[in-house]
Amino acid sequence: MYRIGFGIDFHQLVEGRKLVIGGVTIPHHKGALGHSDADVLLHAICDALLGALALGDIGIHFPNTDEQFKDIDSRILLEKSYELIKQKGYLVVNVDSSLCLEAPKIKKHGNEMRAVIASILEISQDDVSVKATTTEKMGFVGREEGLVAYATVLLVRQGV
Amino acid sequence: MYRIGFGIDFHQLVEGRKLVIGGVTIPHHKGALGHSDADVLLHAICDALLGALALGDIGIHFPNTDEQFKDIDSRILLEKSYELIKQKGYLVVNVDSSLCLEAPKIKKHGNEMRAVIASILEISQDDVSVKATTTEKMGFVGREEGLVAYATVLLVRQGV
Amino acid sequence: MYRIGFGIDFHQLVEGRKLVIGGVTIPHHKGALGHSDADVLLHAICDALLGALALGDIGIHFPNTDEQFKDIDSRILLEKSYELIKQKGYLVVNVDSSLCLEAPKIKKHGNEMRAVIASILEISQDDVSVKATTTEKMGFVGREEGLVAYATVLLVRQGV
Repeated sequence: MYRIGFGIDFHQLVEGRKLVIGGVTIPHHKGALGHSDADVLLHAICDALLGALALGDIGIHFPNTDEQFKDIDSRILLEKSYELIKQKGYLVVNVDSSLCLEAPKIKKHGNEMRAVIASILEISQDDVSVKATTTEKMGFVGREEGLVAYATVLLVRQGV
Repeated sequence: MYRIGFGIDFHQLVEGRKLVIGGVTIPHHKGALGHSDADVLLHAICDALLGALALGDIGIHFPNTDEQFKDIDSRILLEKSYELIKQKGYLVVNVDSSLCLEAPKIKKHGNEMRAVIASILEISQDDVSVKATTTEKMGFVGREEGLVAYATVLLVRQGV
Repeated sequence: MYRIGFGIDFHQLVEGRKLVIGGVTIPHHKGALGHSDADVLLHAICDALLGALALGDIGIHFPNTDEQFKDIDSRILLEKSYELIKQKGYLVVNVDSSLCLEAPKIKKHGNEMRAVIASILEISQDDVSVKATTTEKMGFVGREEGLVAYATVLLVRQGV
């Protein structure tokens, strides 16, 4: 039996922070603001995994008021989310994601992000998609005030 | 055979209206503006159900110019949408949804929303996910001018 | 085996351009700005198809810096994207999409858009959904500065 999940995440872009997307640190004059490392892509994927099995959301599992998650590497959050999926007997079929950001171009980092995600989710890089688009200068993404990530996942019950 | 659907809905937040989300009335100084009860979450789920079987959208089935839908309880719209799905021979496998709103926190109402939705769609509460996120103060959601809901559904043909 | 994909696309609305959505030219005082014909709906569907099989994104396959794609009819881009899916042995089960735009109303053009998309993807019109919503006057869509399209697709491996 299959299940689908969907996640969306937002972070402000500010001076003096690192820009970490999909587990990869990307050189840029701004970074993403957040309690953790503010990895918008991994957060969206966490939420999609949790949502597919109705296990709550990233804010419930990893509250941004909890000191143990301060500046945490979001790869750990993705591992924890995936563990919850596996405990329920599910595997990931595929992940598709879209990043909305005006700058920088992340195309050359896409395969590295896919490798990070595939490794954590125990799937092939062919089963992980990271796409990117600008918002054509419109809205808070267009003004480079922030970035957004969307993720969808398809899960399948193990042994079915 | 499976089908997927996706829905998105927007409502302004204004003084002097009730805030109804997922069939639950939530105490808040603002409410959602709309022709019906303006339940952004149930509307997104209606659209995802209709979209999965290409049956049109909520604006076609329940036009906001039609007096019979004035101030209507959106649980009735969800029932009607689900009826259309069932008539086509489909059942709901799971629903995943994301609310984007700055305030109020809706975490404590999540399970009640899930119970409402699960009951209408004749599935278990474990098959209904309601997640929530802020937009980190950005955009019209961040300024508390409005709220957005996204929903995805997976359907399966009955008896297949 | 199934796969899911998700796409999102944005275009500015400006005077002096044609408005092409879903392969249909729609009379309006503004049109969508872009390197190609700026068909926001077909672009989102291209991205969903490519994303489902982790084949990159529309910006990688059809760069907006490439003269061969200048003013191109996006139906050609959708055909090319679908060819890539077929080459991998997959067929489209269904497409669901949502347009966010304040004006014009596109309801009367919906079936023509569905026919265009269904024909290219070699599926029935019953397997293609085009929904539409305003953003209730909020944000850049609400100010009629631009439009957004979301698309989800479900693919299945041929002969499975």
